[in-house]
Amino acid sequence: MSEHETDHGVGSEPGSGMIADIAEQPAIYENLLTDRAEVSRIAAEIARRRPRHVLFTARGTSDHAALYGTYLTEIRLGIPAGLVSPSTITVYGARPDLRDCLVVGVSQSGGSPDLGEVVRVARERGATTLAITNAPDSPLAQVAELSLDVRAGTERAVAATKTYTAELLTLLLLVEGWRGDGPVDPDELRALAALPAHAATVLADPTPTAIADRYRFAERVVTTGRGYAYATAREAALKLMETSYLAALAFSGADLLHGPLAMTDADVPVLAVVGSGPAGEAMQDVLARLRERRADLVVVGPQPSAPVAAQLRTPAVDERHAPLLDILGLQRLALALALARGENPDTPRGLRKVTATR
Amino acid sequence: MSEHETDHGVGSEPGSGMIADIAEQPAIYENLLTDRAEVSRIAAEIARRRPRHVLFTARGTSDHAALYGTYLTEIRLGIPAGLVSPSTITVYGARPDLRDCLVVGVSQSGGSPDLGEVVRVARERGATTLAITNAPDSPLAQVAELSLDVRAGTERAVAATKTYTAELLTLLLLVEGWRGDGPVDPDELRALAALPAHAATVLADPTPTAIADRYRFAERVVTTGRGYAYATAREAALKLMETSYLAALAFSGADLLHGPLAMTDADVPVLAVVGSGPAGEAMQDVLARLRERRADLVVVGPQPSAPVAAQLRTPAVDERHAPLLDILGLQRLALALALARGENPDTPRGLRKVTATR
Repeated sequence: MSEHETDHGVGSEPGSGMIADIAEQPAIYENLLTDRAEVSRIAAEIARRRPRHVLFTARGTSDHAALYGTYLTEIRLGIPAGLVSPSTITVYGARPDLRDCLVVGVSQSGGSPDLGEVVRVARERGATTLAITNAPDSPLAQVAELSLDVRAGTERAVAATKTYTAELLTLLLLVEGWRGDGPVDPDELRALAALPAHAATVLADPTPTAIADRYRFAERVVTTGRGYAYATAREAALKLMETSYLAALAFSGADLLHGPLAMTDADVPVLAVVGSGPAGEAMQDVLARLRERRADLVVVGPQPSAPVAAQLRTPAVDERHAPLLDILGLQRLALALALARGENPDTPRGLRKVTATR
Repeated sequence: MSEHETDHGVGSEPGSGMIADIAEQPAIYENLLTDRAEVSRIAAEIARRRPRHVLFTARGTSDHAALYGTYLTEIRLGIPAGLVSPSTITVYGARPDLRDCLVVGVSQSGGSPDLGEVVRVARERGATTLAITNAPDSPLAQVAELSLDVRAGTERAVAATKTYTAELLTLLLLVEGWRGDGPVDPDELRALAALPAHAATVLADPTPTAIADRYRFAERVVTTGRGYAYATAREAALKLMETSYLAALAFSGADLLHGPLAMTDADVPVLAVVGSGPAGEAMQDVLARLRERRADLVVVGPQPSAPVAAQLRTPAVDERHAPLLDILGLQRLALALALARGENPDTPRGLRKVTATR
C-alpha cells in the first residue's frame, strides 16, 4: 500500500479525498444493512402497487448503478426494466404513457435538472416515482413521490466512489425487499451480512497499487464483463477516464466480440470482470478470444485464471452481490494510476461535482 | 474522391467491399420508400394490439439502430421503450412477464443465438415479437411472430454500413406507420422522399477522404451527439474501432459533461453530430465546453459551426431523419482512415460476420 493509501484523512495531498471516500465503503455497507426500516417501507409500498415495468433514469456513475438495477429487476422480479434517455422528454418533449410504471431517478447529488424534469413528467404521466440520492433535500428527491437516501455521507472527491456502491446496495435491498413485499429473505440477509468484512479484505489487497506502474503509459484500456458485472466494467471505465484521462472503453463481453475485439492487441490492457456464476462462465469464451488477440489481461474475480498479467482477487460470492466488491479494487487502480501519472484524482480537469445538463 | 472510392465494383482491392456497400445506400432508401406494403401491414397489426411497452434486443451495429428505435417509440408514439440486455434471459434465465409488450429483435444476419433465444422466450411470455433482419429466412426471423426484411442485399464487408441504414429506415417507416394505424402521414412521406437524393449528395462530398490524413496517427477519438444523433455517434465510434482499430468513445452530449470530458484535450479528435433541431440546440453547451478544452472538433450537421477542424455538411432535415444522412460521411471517414492506415476494412482482424454469443 502506498503512503497515499494509508492516509485516510482529508488533506491537501492529491487523492486524499478519494482515498478517504473509498475507505469508508465497508462502514457504509454495515450501516445500510443494519438500518433497513426505510428501504423496507418503500419496497413494501412499491410491491403493493404492482408496477408492470421499471424505468431508470440517471447520468454518469449513477447510470451504472441504474444498469445494475435493471438486471436486478428483470432477474429477481421478472419485471422488464430499462434505462430512459432523458433527452426524449427534456429535449424532444415526449410525454409517454407511464401508468403501471415505476420510474427511478438515481443521482448522488440529486441536482441534475434533466433528471428532475424526467421524474416530474413521469409522475404527471401516471408513474410511481422514486428518487435514490445521497441528498434527501435535493430537487430530485423533492420532485419524486418516494425517496431513498443512500446515506454515504459527503463525498470529498469529484469522482464518485462510495456513493456508487451505496446506490448499488440500496437498489439491491430495495429489489430484495420488493420480492418479499417488504422484508428481505433471511438467507439473502445472511449472505449480505458478510459483505462489509469482504469489502475490507478487498480494500487491504496491495495489488491495485502494485500494478498501476504497469499501466503508467497505457493510452487506452478496455473493460468488460457480462450480466451484473457489466455495470462494474462500465463504472471502472468511467473512473479511469475521469481520474487518469485514459481512453477507457467498456463492453459487455458479448458486444466485445461483435466488433470492438478488432481493436484489442498486445498493447491494449483489458480489465475483465469474471464472476463465479453463470456470467463468469459465459465470459470464458471472451477470455479465450482475448488471449488469441494477445491482450494484456487483468482479471477481477474469485477464480484463478491464468495466464494473465494480474488478478484482482475477490471473495467468491453470488454474482448479484459481486458488484459491491469487484469495483473496489478498480476504484483503487484508478486512484493509483492517477497518482502515478501525477494527476490529482480529487479534482479532475474540466469536471464539476454537480453537472447541469438538460 | 480517392481512386478507391470511385471503384464501386467488388474486387480484391482493400475496402472495395465496404465502398460498394456504402454506395448502395441511396438506392436502398429509394426501394424501401417505394415498396412499403409489408411495413404498413406489420405497423397496422402492431397498432391494433396497442402494446404498452416496446423492448429492443440487438448487438453491435444493430444495437445502434435499436437505440434509434427507442427514441422514435418514445417521442413519436409516447410509448416507453428500452434496450434489453440479452444476458438477463440467456445467462441468468430471467422469465419476465411481457404481456402488453412488443419485443423487437434487430440483426442484419438474424443468426446470433442469444437474440433468437430472447425473442423465443419473449413470445412464450406473452409479448408480440418482431424480427427486423436482412435475412428473412434466418433463425431470428423464423422464431419471431412478425418479421420485416430490410432488403439491403448481401453485405460484402464485415463492417455493417448499408444494413445499418436500412434498419434505421425500416424502423422509421414502422413507427410512422404505427402512428397512422398503417399508412405513413403524407407530409412525412414527402419529407422522406428527399432522402435518397440527399444521401447521394452527402456521398459525393470529398471531405471525409480529405480529412482522413489528419487523423492517421490519432490514438483515440470521441464521438458525441444527443437525441436521435446519439445513435449516429455510437455507430460512428464502432465503425472507427472495427475498421481502423482506434479507441473510439461515444457519449451522449450530456453524459460527456458528467465525467469523460476530463479525458479530452487538444490531442483528442471529437466528432460531434449536431442537428438543426432541439438536440442540435442542446449540443451548443457541449461544443462550448469542448472548445474550452481545446478539442480538435469535427462537426457533422447542417449548420456552420466555427471554429472547427472540419465539417461534414449534411442537408438540413428533421433530426428524426438526420441519422440516415449523418452516418454516411462517418462511414466514409472510417473507410478512408482504415485505408490511410494500410488496413483492409472489408476484413477486420479478429472479426466474423455472424457472431455467435449467448
